[in-house]
This record gives sequence, structure tokens and C-alpha cells, in this order.
Amino acid sequence: MTLTTARATELRSDALDRFRAVRADSRALAGPLSDADATVQSMPDASPAKWHLAHTTWFFETMLLKPNVGGYRVFDEAYNFLFNSYYETVGARHPRPKRGLITRPSLDEILAYRAHVDAAMEAFIGDADQGVVDLIELGLNHEQQHQELLLTDILHLFAENPLKPAYRDPEPLAVAPTPGEAGWVAFDGGIVEIGHDGRSFGFDCEGPRHQALIQPFRIADRLVTNGEWMAFMADGGYRDPLLWLADGWAQILEHEWSAPLYWEERDGEHLQMTLRGLQPVDPDAPVAHVSYFEADAFASWAGKRLPSEAEWERAAEGLPVAGTFAKAGAGRLRPKPAGPSTGGLRQMFGDVWEWTRSPFTPYPGFKPAAGAVGEYNGKFMCAQFVLRGGSCATPEGHVRATYRNFFQPDKRWQFSGLRLAEDA
Amino acid sequence: MTLTTARATELRSDALDRFRAVRADSRALAGPLSDADATVQSMPDASPAKWHLAHTTWFFETMLLKPNVGGYRVFDEAYNFLFNSYYETVGARHPRPKRGLITRPSLDEILAYRAHVDAAMEAFIGDADQGVVDLIELGLNHEQQHQELLLTDILHLFAENPLKPAYRDPEPLAVAPTPGEAGWVAFDGGIVEIGHDGRSFGFDCEGPRHQALIQPFRIADRLVTNGEWMAFMADGGYRDPLLWLADGWAQILEHEWSAPLYWEERDGEHLQMTLRGLQPVDPDAPVAHVSYFEADAFASWAGKRLPSEAEWERAAEGLPVAGTFAKAGAGRLRPKPAGPSTGGLRQMFGDVWEWTRSPFTPYPGFKPAAGAVGEYNGKFMCAQFVLRGGSCATPEGHVRATYRNFFQPDKRWQFSGLRLAEDA
Amino acid sequence: MTLTTARATELRSDALDRFRAVRADSRALAGPLSDADATVQSMPDASPAKWHLAHTTWFFETMLLKPNVGGYRVFDEAYNFLFNSYYETVGARHPRPKRGLITRPSLDEILAYRAHVDAAMEAFIGDADQGVVDLIELGLNHEQQHQELLLTDILHLFAENPLKPAYRDPEPLAVAPTPGEAGWVAFDGGIVEIGHDGRSFGFDCEGPRHQALIQPFRIADRLVTNGEWMAFMADGGYRDPLLWLADGWAQILEHEWSAPLYWEERDGEHLQMTLRGLQPVDPDAPVAHVSYFEADAFASWAGKRLPSEAEWERAAEGLPVAGTFAKAGAGRLRPKPAGPSTGGLRQMFGDVWEWTRSPFTPYPGFKPAAGAVGEYNGKFMCAQFVLRGGSCATPEGHVRATYRNFFQPDKRWQFSGLRLAEDA
Amino acid sequence: MTLTTARATELRSDALDRFRAVRADSRALAGPLSDADATVQSMPDASPAKWHLAHTTWFFETMLLKPNVGGYRVFDEAYNFLFNSYYETVGARHPRPKRGLITRPSLDEILAYRAHVDAAMEAFIGDADQGVVDLIELGLNHEQQHQELLLTDILHLFAENPLKPAYRDPEPLAVAPTPGEAGWVAFDGGIVEIGHDGRSFGFDCEGPRHQALIQPFRIADRLVTNGEWMAFMADGGYRDPLLWLADGWAQILEHEWSAPLYWEERDGEHLQMTLRGLQPVDPDAPVAHVSYFEADAFASWAGKRLPSEAEWERAAEGLPVAGTFAKAGAGRLRPKPAGPSTGGLRQMFGDVWEWTRSPFTPYPGFKPAAGAVGEYNGKFMCAQFVLRGGSCATPEGHVRATYRNFFQPDKRWQFSGLRLAEDA
Repeated sequence: MTLTTARATELRSDALDRFRAVRADSRALAGPLSDADATVQSMPDASPAKWHLAHTTWFFETMLLKPNVGGYRVFDEAYNFLFNSYYETVGARHPRPKRGLITRPSLDEILAYRAHVDAAMEAFIGDADQGVVDLIELGLNHEQQHQELLLTDILHLFAENPLKPAYRDPEPLAVAPTPGEAGWVAFDGGIVEIGHDGRSFGFDCEGPRHQALIQPFRIADRLVTNGEWMAFMADGGYRDPLLWLADGWAQILEHEWSAPLYWEERDGEHLQMTLRGLQPVDPDAPVAHVSYFEADAFASWAGKRLPSEAEWERAAEGLPVAGTFAKAGAGRLRPKPAGPSTGGLRQMFGDVWEWTRSPFTPYPGFKPAAGAVGEYNGKFMCAQFVLRGGSCATPEGHVRATYRNFFQPDKRWQFSGLRLAEDA
Repeated sequence: MTLTTARATELRSDALDRFRAVRADSRALAGPLSDADATVQSMPDASPAKWHLAHTTWFFETMLLKPNVGGYRVFDEAYNFLFNSYYETVGARHPRPKRGLITRPSLDEILAYRAHVDAAMEAFIGDADQGVVDLIELGLNHEQQHQELLLTDILHLFAENPLKPAYRDPEPLAVAPTPGEAGWVAFDGGIVEIGHDGRSFGFDCEGPRHQALIQPFRIADRLVTNGEWMAFMADGGYRDPLLWLADGWAQILEHEWSAPLYWEERDGEHLQMTLRGLQPVDPDAPVAHVSYFEADAFASWAGKRLPSEAEWERAAEGLPVAGTFAKAGAGRLRPKPAGPSTGGLRQMFGDVWEWTRSPFTPYPGFKPAAGAVGEYNGKFMCAQFVLRGGSCATPEGHVRATYRNFFQPDKRWQFSGLRLAEDA
Repeated sequence: MTLTTARATELRSDALDRFRAVRADSRALAGPLSDADATVQSMPDASPAKWHLAHTTWFFETMLLKPNVGGYRVFDEAYNFLFNSYYETVGARHPRPKRGLITRPSLDEILAYRAHVDAAMEAFIGDADQGVVDLIELGLNHEQQHQELLLTDILHLFAENPLKPAYRDPEPLAVAPTPGEAGWVAFDGGIVEIGHDGRSFGFDCEGPRHQALIQPFRIADRLVTNGEWMAFMADGGYRDPLLWLADGWAQILEHEWSAPLYWEERDGEHLQMTLRGLQPVDPDAPVAHVSYFEADAFASWAGKRLPSEAEWERAAEGLPVAGTFAKAGAGRLRPKPAGPSTGGLRQMFGDVWEWTRSPFTPYPGFKPAAGAVGEYNGKFMCAQFVLRGGSCATPEGHVRATYRNFFQPDKRWQFSGLRLAEDA
Repeated sequence: MTLTTARATELRSDALDRFRAVRADSRALAGPLSDADATVQSMPDASPAKWHLAHTTWFFETMLLKPNVGGYRVFDEAYNFLFNSYYETVGARHPRPKRGLITRPSLDEILAYRAHVDAAMEAFIGDADQGVVDLIELGLNHEQQHQELLLTDILHLFAENPLKPAYRDPEPLAVAPTPGEAGWVAFDGGIVEIGHDGRSFGFDCEGPRHQALIQPFRIADRLVTNGEWMAFMADGGYRDPLLWLADGWAQILEHEWSAPLYWEERDGEHLQMTLRGLQPVDPDAPVAHVSYFEADAFASWAGKRLPSEAEWERAAEGLPVAGTFAKAGAGRLRPKPAGPSTGGLRQMFGDVWEWTRSPFTPYPGFKPAAGAVGEYNGKFMCAQFVLRGGSCATPEGHVRATYRNFFQPDKRWQFSGLRLAEDA
């Protein structure tokens, strides 16, 4: 697409600002980490912080600089093997479960790699056309996803350490009124439009925008709290197979789940590992780190169900995308109590990702893009469930009402919680 | 519900006929099996034939006779532990992977157990009211499902035997004309009604009948054939990761899949293990024993996609439920070539179960029944995909257009194949 | 070697008698088994009874008939693949953990196979020379080993069945006086001769006869009893890591061992599964079904140690090989209490195999024979421990003082127990 | 034991010198490592360098300072949990396979821990009596063992890194004459004395000194070379099951071994990962990184056998303990070619540990010491084989002729090789 000079200048200037801001955020996130913190991989689902920092950089080098910038000097030829995540199109790659064995290059070398690519990118952005700017935007959104993963993976790593180190120092929490009973907001059934319309950035799986048919439903005006979860636990929720999906019950038997991930009990008190160290569980805060299986079982126990993603998106329509998000690694880094009723829906964005009952499937008319970028989401459309709304570890500005996150139903290391729904 | 005498008599007479017929079918299926054949479990997904014969009998004893027939003498108190499948409500049970270690009771004893329960059931049916008849109908449909599993599990067992024994003798196959290229049948989009209306027997997960929104689509007028599958194989279909879902590609790497289950190559010829022993692959017959992953990859390779279950049900609406089914263990026991084009849809019922792209999820308004029967389907609504139409191992009369079968996407030991679809 | 006519006639006549007797014993052992009992494999270490019956027959067919008898008709060409155990020299073989999937050939077919080979062997024995007779003797001793395994494998299988079927009916046990405290028999140190001298049949690993150096030692005059084992359990023997080898403690943590294999506790009483069904533990009988790890830990707890095999053989020198053995599947089939002190060593033969502290290693000068027979024992000389003396499941006449049995230190499904020793 | 003042002063002075030297060596070994290098654990058998540095320090703190030094301030109470290896006596400990998740404390903090304990130890040594000095000597020998493990574990970690980093820079190797064919040195049979006599430091398992009976034998005058190993490979050594112990053959099938660990082939050339990076295989240097299974198979292929440990010790008697050892992480760090024949035994010490055919068992009269120190070696006396002579990664001065190293027969990450023997 040809651009007028003025439009092009503005476009490039915006892209540059945004590029610098997102890239700086990643560096800031790594601030509290030692070389060792940034190297270790605590489970196959997680990746080292250093890997996140390098892989997001590899994206720009591989997708933008190498194909487009004549004379670009690759920082290190070996990095394509080390820092490709899952792009079959781009060649062989290091096995995922072995990412934590790469003690070299060091964190400092990875930061140098970032600086090298950033410099080349900044120069390149000065000549960018619309297509390039769009691909950069994809790279930045991709990086923001890895910013969230960097936080959740560090939390997992630190939770494995008997010393329970804090990623950031704890800070005193403001005393807040108890949220009280959840209220219910009703919606009509009928044909609704959902999905991304393509007029601004969205991931491929968010579109196409399309019609969906929903039945009348009600949805809770706030998230399920830790206090409600303790009642579920006290009522034997983790011991009654009739509440559980068969696969979920198998998880309970195998892994002896009896509480959300990161909870432990000491002297009768519930504690949980957080990015600010081991802290008492706040009964008013939303429950986090529960699997789909647990969310579904809780809903069965409560006589409710999880919302579908179409219902959730219908309910979120027109609401401001405001809530507890991450800000370059600052911010609360823990989900926040709902506060008093407002009459409307609270906590739809931020705090915790909300499990929906919807398997992650292609929208009608969805077609993966050609080439490496087409591997982005489509190949994961199997046996995962959609989560909506973002969390306290999601970078501010990253999500929107159409945003579809997805994980396998047994995963718990994300800030995942739930909101109840029911047929009207 | 109170019944008039005449209506009650007819109802009971019909129920008795049907009970006798289905129960006799199971016995006939066991006819070719030795005590040892009926005892061994060849993988955790499969069950011994003896177990199928006993478990379906246990269903009648546990759900009908014990709660309703005063003075009923339980055949063996130990059987409740041995032959409960997964009903948490009904107490502890023998671990599924150990079903094949139960050499005693023998097949003869299990047949005696069947006779004992049959006699009690026949007497009981003479007094049955509508509710009981409905529960018997559920038990008979349940038994028919196990009839199909008995066949597929025996096929798996015999395929593991280097002697490749035949469950039934091979018989000469009539020479048939080649089906030719698939044709395409177009359907409009819009709101359609799908699901079971409850006016005759249906499993809980088939309802409630409800509205669904579909887009215009086309669907192939026949199943994908073995010949087409060989073209996919010859074109490197099993070696190109870009055709595959990520979980499917992981299966390929782990299990070295390079053909459908039960295929082997000898001297350049494709053979496949069947219920009639090791036979040449018929290029005109529908491909069977492929996983969802393979079906999806094939569709990607062909530039098409799998139909959704709503699309499939829309297409099947009003068609007669006719095709290649099992008849008390007789019948062809292998899928049949489509025959020449008819202008309409061929092979919608029988031959092979057709993978759809739809995850197995609850229909709007679905609620599991209370009690043990409520465990029937709901707890499996996670990470499985719906298959439609029945197979050559499905008992004749068992399926219908609304019937939802479901398996995990990596499973291949059922007679599972596919039909292509595309957006119109 | 050329034989005189008279010597040859006698040799052949003896060989024929012995062949018939041992082969008949195997058939008798299979008497109580159904086709299914004889087919199932309850764990990878065990084999189906049908397999034992066929494999021992395969030995004669492969090692004797095929190379020596012109015109011998192989019973079934497929059997070489199915019933080879581990002889790499003899070609490909069916994977051991899949032996239980072979429902066909049936038990009756295997018995027909035995009859076919027996007939050919009987004719062949009429012409046998010394070398052939020696190889037949090896085959018969090999078959006796499998007779013992058949019993121990059936016990394992039946123990997995919640119905706890009895291989043979229980019979009333004679009331016997309690054995009382163990006495100790002292032996001098010095150079002793151990090992088989080759003048009668012995397995390759029993020789060559050679000098060994031992220190003065004392050895208990009877086996450790169940009653003593209960004291070990009551004293926390299974919970104190300091008593255990590191690998043994790992087994305890992984498998939650807290008693010998086949023991269970009901209402405070100790029961154990036996070849005669579930029976109360007899405190006076020798403990059986303990691993090397358990035997070693018990010895540590008792302040003693296990004997070395040289010590055991020194102690057994000159004693009659008498004790509780199996007699064609008849006999007690359970170890027997020691009875009152005799002043000498009791229970050295029969009852239970006695773990020694000696790893199974080659004797000085040991060389495996050439060819398939050479694979007999040598390749297992790693990470196994020697057991001595035979058990209640060993065929009478099979063992001798030089006999070396061997198993991995975690194995418990044999009739394995222990006798204590100490430095003098 | 009471000491004269002069003797005590000298004893303490020597102990202090030795303590400082060994402790300094460990620090020097860590010199080339980054915080991340020192933190990661590349397999369960290995430990992080940081852990080795901390655990050896924990030994002094726990066994010496805490019980003996009033007012000693424990550096960090949490370290007892983190850095206990396997001493059940000393309380709970962090699971071994999770040692690599401890990113904090950092390497710098561990060095501070070392300095803290060193300071307290130096003061304490000023008052030490003979018993304390002996325990310090045990601690220092223990630390030297971990120095060797630190090197072998780092080699394993770096070998997992596709960048193949070098622990130390490669240095040019002097051109040496080819060692030529191995010669054979003969020894008489008879009663020999082996084992440690207790007059200087030795590990518990090295004693008591005792008589052993050996047969006449010959032993090779040098180690097996890489060149000889390549001949074994070229002759199909890794593909012939008849050469292998059954457990070894199972390893080959499972892990697809076709060369020593760390070897790879590029463009027809054999390369191996070393502490000095990826280097060509030197055909004259001793083969290293082979398992017992491989050593045993090679010996079978060569028509020889491995020596027993008594034979090896007899052969080593009176030889100077000289060879290629590690010197505070300096030194060659790779095994060295034998050099020309000397007429006597070459390479008996240093270069590579020599697998013997002897399982690791207690010597006659061995009794573990009471308390935590008693857990040192005895509990590993099962299913491991003895290695003799030390390696290029063993600290100089650490081994002696009676020294017994031991590993499971499948382990390959140590510098383990072999020397052939045969019956005379």
C-alpha cells in the first residue's frame, strides 16, 4: 500500500514509539532477575526468562530484518536453532524441555542481542511501509504475550525454591471493603456478532467477525473469590468425583490436588506463593491458578456453569478495558478484590483470565495465513479451552473484548480464575 | 405414568422382544471367541470381550433388578466390583487397565451370569411400567455400544497376534465399480434445528433439540477412500508438520505413524488387519482407523476441512439410516466402497464413523440426569471430538442422525474415517 | 563318544524314562488351569503358563529335533517366533511384555504341540548318543525351571484377581510344634572347594569347581519365620531408612512396601495369598516373597548379615537334598515350619530360596559355551543376587548344593526368603 | 587420644594447610563458571556446581562446627535442607532431581557461605584433637570427590548445549608416539592381601585389609585406546547382541548407543565433547565415557575379560600413584596416550577410571560406622561395579591402590574406560 509522505511519517513515528516502549518493558521485567534466575526452566511448560527475551528478539530478526534488510548482520547464527519456538517453517530448533540447559549465552549476552536487533529495527522502521508496520505490531503483541509468560514462569520457578524468593518486594495492600455476594446480570438470547473486525490489530484466531447464536443467560457481576473457593474446599469439593469431568478426576488422583496451585497450609492458615513472595490468601481477592477442571467442578458445586466465550464477549461488549494489569513488571502483580457492587459487571478485564466453557476452535471462515506467521494459533486448536479478559500479569493495553487466550484444561500456572454463569 | 392394560401389554411385549433380540446379539458376537480370546485386554483403552458381556449384564442387575425386584438373588456379590465401568455413584471398582487379569470367572460363568439376569429381567419386564421400559431401553442401547466395542477390541487384540487370526472367515467380495471423484452437495446457511427431540430413545447428550447457526457449506457426497489416503501418504502427508495440529505432530514423532492403524506393507503391497484376517487394502473402500489428527491433516492437505456436527446433521436430515452395519457379528464387518454416484449423499450411515471438527460439548440447556445414569456422557465432555453416522461394527438400528459418538483425537482403533467439507 | 551297545541301551532307556516323567509333570501342573488362566500375563516379569508349556517344547524342537532328525515335520513354523525366550542366536522373537496377548494358539493346541514333539523325541531318544542325552538333560532341567516359574507366575496372576482363586484347594495343615529360637552352627575359615565338578548334570554357571577363601562364620540353623518378620514390621522395619540399601529405600518410597508380597491385613489379621488361596499367615512358617532389599534390611535390623554363597555351600556340603519341594504340582505348595531343633542345619533345601549376599558373577575360569546354549546364564551376570537351596515350588530332584538361582534384588514373586549368618 | 603439645601443634598445622589447599582448589574449579553455569542440573545423576560447592561446605558445618563449636552461628538455617545429599540421619532434604531449580542463593552467596565456614573451621582447627582431624580429613576427601563430580557434571551440562562451550580453552597437544600393541604382564595366583590397612586415610569401604584368593592372570600394560574402540565399532560391536550382557543390550535398544558418550560424527570424522570443547577423537588416547556394559562387551569382542578388583590391586601393588590427574581445574583434563612401552604397567593411575568385573560389595568384616558418617558407602553396595585408578578429573593425591570407586553399569558421564585381562 502506498502512503502519503505525511501519513507514512506519522505511521513510522508511532511504530517507533511503540517498539521502544514494548521492548523497554521486557528489559524492565528482567530487572530483578539474576543470570541464574533467567536461565533455569522449572517445567516443560515454562521457559527461561532469558529464552523469552531472546525468542521475542529472534522474531524481529527472523521475520523482519533477515528477509528485508540487505546487509543486516545476524548477531549469532546459532541463535536461530536456540530461540525458534515452534515454527516448523523456519527450520530445526532446540527441544523445548531442554531450554533450561543453555547457560550460555548469558543474560548479558542476550541483552546485547536485544540491543543489536533493536538498533537495526529502529533504522528499519524509518523506511517501513504499512505491511512492515503490521508485522512489527504482531511482533510486539507476541512480545507482550511472552512478557506475561516470563512473569508466570518466574513465579513457577520461585515457587519451586524452598526459600520462596520474591520477584518484587511485598507492599502493604490497601484495606478494601468485602465484595459481598455476587450479583447477576441478565442478557437476551439471539444472534450476536463476535470476533475481531480487522480494523485494528488482532490475532488471527480472533477473527473473522461473525454471527453467533446465544440463548438468554445470566452472568455473575464479579469473579469467584478465594473465600468462596475455601468454602468449596471445606465442603469436600476436591473429594467428590461427581463434581468433576472424568479427566479432571484423573488429575486429582494422580497429582493429589486439594487446593489451587501455589497454596499451602501452615498452622491452619492458607498461604500462597506470589510474585511478592509467600503471602496469606486474601479471601476477598479472586481465586487464581485453578485449572479448567477445577473451575468446571466449582461451577457444578455451585449449581452454575461457566460462560461460553460468545456469552462472555456479549457481556463485555462496550465495557472499558480497565482493571488490574501489569505495568512493565510493576503494578500489583496480584489479582485485586472486586470492591463494592456497581450495579454492572466488575473485573471483566485484568486480575485473572476467566475460563470459558468453549473449546478453542476456529471461527467460521478462519484460515491460517501463509508462511511462518500462519503457524501462530491455528495449530493449537485442539483440546484447549478459551480464557478471556486478561490478568494482573497481562501488559496493560494488550487485551480487548475479542481476545482469545487458550490453555489445556489441566494447566494452572497462569493467573486463571473464573466467573459463573447460568441459563436465564 | 399409568398405562391402560392394552397399551401396557403391548409395551411390555415389545420391550421383551427387543430385550431378547439385543441380548441374543451379544451372545452371538461372542460365538467365535475362546475363553482366552474373551479374557485378554490388549491395551488400556480396550476391554476384554468377557468384560463387555458381564458389564452390560451388570447394568441390568444394578440399575433395574437390585433396586426394583424384591427377593432378587444377586448372582455374585463380587461382580459389582469387577464389572462396574466408571460409575462413581455405584461404588469402588476394579482398575480399568487390570480388566484383562480376571481369568476367572470364565466365559462360561459369564454366560451363566447373563442367563441368570436374563431370566430375572424377563420376569420383571412382565410388570414393567413406562419408566422401567425406558431404563431398559437405555440398557439395551448401552449394550449395543458395547457390542461395537467388543468387535473393535477383538480386532485390536487379534492384530497384536503375529498369527493374525480372523474373527470371522474372509468371504469373497463382490466386484464393484470404482466410486470415482467425490461430488459436492451444497447447503444454505442460517438457523437450523439439531439434536434429539426426546420423542423416542436418545442418549442424554443428543439433546436438547435446539437452534444452531450455520454458514453456507458444501459437503462431499462420499467418504474419503483408501486410494485417496495412499495418495496423501505418497505425497508425504505424514512427514509435513505444516499439515498437522501441534498435538498430532507430537503423536507422529512419538509413535512413528506413517499409515492408518492396522496397515502394514509387505513387498510393496498395502495390507490391513481386519475382522476377517489380514487382507489387501481395497483402494475403493473408505479409509478407516484414522485419528482425528490424521483426518484433519488429510483435509488440510486436500485444501478442505472437516464438517461441523451441525453441518453434518443438517446434511443428514431426512436421509434413511441405511448402510453397512453389523448384524449380530455377521455382516460384512468391513467398510464398503461407495458405489456409483447417486446425485445425493452416499455413505452417511454405516461403514465408518465420520470425524467432525466439533469438540464434544454440552448442547445449550443440557443437564446430566440425577444419579448413576447421569454419569453417562456429561463427564466426558472435554478434549474429545464428535463422530457421526455409525460404522460397519455398529449394530443395525442403533444410530440415528442426531447420534453423537466421541473419542479423543489420537484414538484409532474404532472404525473412524472422514468426509470432507468446505465453506460455500 | 561311541558307546557299547549295552551301555547305550541303558542310557537311552534312562533318558526316555526321565523325559517322560518331566514332560508329564508339566502337563500335570497345567491341570488346574483354564485356557484363559494359561494365556494371561500379569506382569512383564511373568509369562503365561501356555508360554512356559510351549517354550520348553520349543527348546526340544529347536535344539534337538530340527538340527538332528531328518524329515522332522515342524509343528508350526510361526512358533519359533512366538516361543523363543531370549536366544539371540535363534532369530527374532515376540516381545516379552506381549506374551499375554497370544490368545491363539489355545492351551489345547499347545498340548497338541507337546504331544507332537514328545512323539518325535521319544523316537529320537532311541538313537541318542551321549551328547544328545546330555542336551536332553539340559532341556529337562530347563523345563523344571519353567515348572517353578509356571507356579510362581500363576500365583502372581491369581493374586491380582480380587476373587483370589486357589490354584489347588487348601488342605488342613498338621499342627506342628513352634520352631523356637534359631540356633547357630559355626564353621571354620580357610580355603574351600565350591562349584559343580561336572561329573553329573549342572548348569554352566555352577562351575567350574574352584577354590574359595572364606572367613570363620556362623549360620542360623533354620530360616527366618513369618513371626520374626512381623516383629520386624512392628518395630518399624519398613520405615527406618538406616536399615536399607539406598536402592531398597527407593523401592519402599515408590511402591509403598510395608510387608512381604501377597500379604494383606484384614481386621488386624495378616493374610497372604498362596497357591491354595488367601490364607492366614502362619507365624512358624518361613517368610517368603521378600526381596533381597528386604532380606538385607531384616538382617541389619537383627544385627546379622546374609551368608555369602560360598558360606552357604560350605554349610550345605554333605547334607541330603531333602525338604519341601513341589511334586508335579501336588505337594504342600507352601513353605513349612522348621520343626524342633535337630542340632544341625534345618531347611537348607526346599521351602524357600535363600537370598545370599553374593552378586551373581562368573566363577573363576567360567566360559559360556558356544552357540545358543551359551546364552543360558552368562548374559545375566549383572545386578542380580544368588539364591540357594530351592523352594516349595521347585520340582523335587531339581536342585543340589551347588545350584545357583539368581534374581534382581527387587524381585519378590518367587518363594524367596532368608537365613541369617554372622562373622564368627 | 591425648596428644603431646608438639605433636598436636604439628598435626593442627598440617590439617590447616591441607584444609586451605583443598578448599582453595574447589574455588579455583568454579573460576570459569558463571552463576547460571553453576546453577543448572543437566540430568538427575548430576548436580549443579553450586550445589557441590555448598554441599561440601555443609559437611563441615554439620559434622564439625555445629556439634563441636559453641556459639557457632549457622550461616543460613535453610541450607541444611537444601544441601544435605543423602544423609537420612541428618533430616529432610531437597529432592535430588530438583537441585537445579535453586537459582537463589546465588554463586556469590555460596562463596560467601564457604568463606564463613572456612573462617570458623580455621579457628576450630587450632583446637582440634586427633578425632577431629580425622573427620576433617574425611571431609576433605569427600570434597575432592565432589571436585571430580563438579568437572564431570559441567562436562555433561556443556555437552547438552548446542554451542558446545569449553570449560577451559583448548591447548595444543604435544605430538606423541603411537602406543603400539598392548603388552601383557603375568601374575601368579594364590592368596594376596588387599584393602586398606587403616594406617592412613581411607574410605570405610576400602577396608578391612584382608586375604583374597586369586588365580594366575595376565593384565594389559596399558588402557584400551580410542583407536581400538573405533575398530570395535567398525566391526559391528554395538550391533551384535551376543557380545553383550542382557541388561546392556536393553540399554542399546532403548538409548541407541553406537559410540561412547560425547562422541559425534561429522563428515566422517569422530569428534568428542571435552572440557576443552568439541575436539577430534585422538586414536592413541584411552577411550573414556564408556559404561560397564560397553567395557564388558568390548572385552568379549577382544576375547578377553575385565580384571577383578583383587587382580587390579595385586597388579598395582607398589606402583607409584602417578599419572594424568586434575590440578585445581588445571591440567590436561583429558586422558593422555600411553606413550611407548616401558616393559611394565602403564596408566594404572589417572587418565580414566578402569571398570573391573567386581560388583561393589562389602569386604569381609566390613561394618559401617555409627551415625551419619556410616551412611557414606555401605548403602550403595548393590548393583554397582568397582572402578579403580582415578582419572584425569580426579584431584592429584586423592587416590591410592586400594581406592574403590563405584557406579551403576549403565553410567557413562564419568571418565570411565578399561584395561583388559585374561586367565593365565
